[in-house]
Amino acid sequence: MLENIRIVLVEPKGSGNIGSVARAMKNMGLKDLAIVGGGRTKSFWARAMAVHAKDILQGVRRFATLREAVADCGLVVGTTCRGGLYRDHSRPPREVAQRILSSSARGAKCALVFGPEDHGLSNRDLKHCQWLITIPTHPDYPSLNIAQAVMICLYELSLAALEKAPQEMISRAPAESVERLFDSMRRSLLKIGFLDPQNPEHILLALRRILGRAGLEEKDVRILTGLFRQLEWYAAEGWKVIEEKQKKGLKIR
Amino acid sequence: MLENIRIVLVEPKGSGNIGSVARAMKNMGLKDLAIVGGGRTKSFWARAMAVHAKDILQGVRRFATLREAVADCGLVVGTTCRGGLYRDHSRPPREVAQRILSSSARGAKCALVFGPEDHGLSNRDLKHCQWLITIPTHPDYPSLNIAQAVMICLYELSLAALEKAPQEMISRAPAESVERLFDSMRRSLLKIGFLDPQNPEHILLALRRILGRAGLEEKDVRILTGLFRQLEWYAAEGWKVIEEKQKKGLKIR
Repeated sequence: MLENIRIVLVEPKGSGNIGSVARAMKNMGLKDLAIVGGGRTKSFWARAMAVHAKDILQGVRRFATLREAVADCGLVVGTTCRGGLYRDHSRPPREVAQRILSSSARGAKCALVFGPEDHGLSNRDLKHCQWLITIPTHPDYPSLNIAQAVMICLYELSLAALEKAPQEMISRAPAESVERLFDSMRRSLLKIGFLDPQNPEHILLALRRILGRAGLEEKDVRILTGLFRQLEWYAAEGWKVIEEKQKKGLKIR
Repeated sequence: MLENIRIVLVEPKGSGNIGSVARAMKNMGLKDLAIVGGGRTKSFWARAMAVHAKDILQGVRRFATLREAVADCGLVVGTTCRGGLYRDHSRPPREVAQRILSSSARGAKCALVFGPEDHGLSNRDLKHCQWLITIPTHPDYPSLNIAQAVMICLYELSLAALEKAPQEMISRAPAESVERLFDSMRRSLLKIGFLDPQNPEHILLALRRILGRAGLEEKDVRILTGLFRQLEWYAAEGWKVIEEKQKKGLKIR
């Protein structure tokens, strides 16, 4: 089940950290490492810290954006050590590990996303994440080294895998389908004046959170996409068509 | 309860690793770091990896032997990634964390001991440990970076502390009292021919394991020490005294 899990590092700074992440992955039986943006995997420190996990460094895939790195994933889980407006639904790793394993057991690819060492994941990155993990720490120094944070998450995942997590009830749709749904949602809800054009993401984030918690199957995505396309059509010209039909006493559909 | 827990690094090789251990300790609310033998704490890499935990590096205490480093500890727990003759009673960190917290809640100092990066703890070191931890890993690459291993143990300890572990039933005696008991045990059991002079430690390890599992209070140590001192006396000259008394029809005690 751990084979379906991808580690995604967003703009990692230290190449030694990338090597340490590769070693932690191999220690726990994972192989799929993706990097968004920069990050050197061939440097002396990357290779030195990876020790016997250089094969994972060699297999790294690179993406320009987080959206591309998680496009085929049914579940995207972010990590954060900060609280705050968009982060208060964060849960401890043990709890989220169960959910990840449940999705992974149904064959869905799952991404576990870690931000840059200095700032962590931005709010822009977080909107791609359906769940958030925060590792419990001492308040005096809550910021973990990135490879340490990866290790704790993988340790919980590997224990959860041993316990054989119960299967999730749904087969999650790939993240890219869900992103296209949100694109259509944004366009249509802007047109009907439901979203503030100055800050459309604010309300959209709440919708993302609700749907992320629910989990969307392919057929759910199709239904919701149909709904928002209809709304877009209605907002653009459909209202005229329907008004005309009503005037003439015709059936609307 | 985590304040009573000491991290002991035996002959650590990489100073960057020492820094990473210090950071992991501060992340999880520990302060007490001890080093047996070498290991540089003032180097660039030690300080760089410690980041905001340089205070822990500055507070490091150094000891010539593991025995001295754990002399005041009621519970000494080793870590190993290998199986083998003296290691098959090893348990996963979650299970041992509960026991450590139970002892620590009674006020006993507890040591968590990590071996050198290349070889881990030797059998000589292990005999000081009443419990052993092995972190479950993938068989392809079971050897964790030392700071990663420390982090997983501390993560489990800090979760166990949050759950408020039940109190242990006994107050464990300091390790140095128990070591003196074993010294007396070795001398006396050699004298009576119970231990093989070529390899006295073999049987002693089994005794260490049994008593370690039981846990010894100060009064237990006094009783057992009395027993083996009596045995030593008997083996040295006592038998003659007793034989003499028996010949004369006198009471033995």
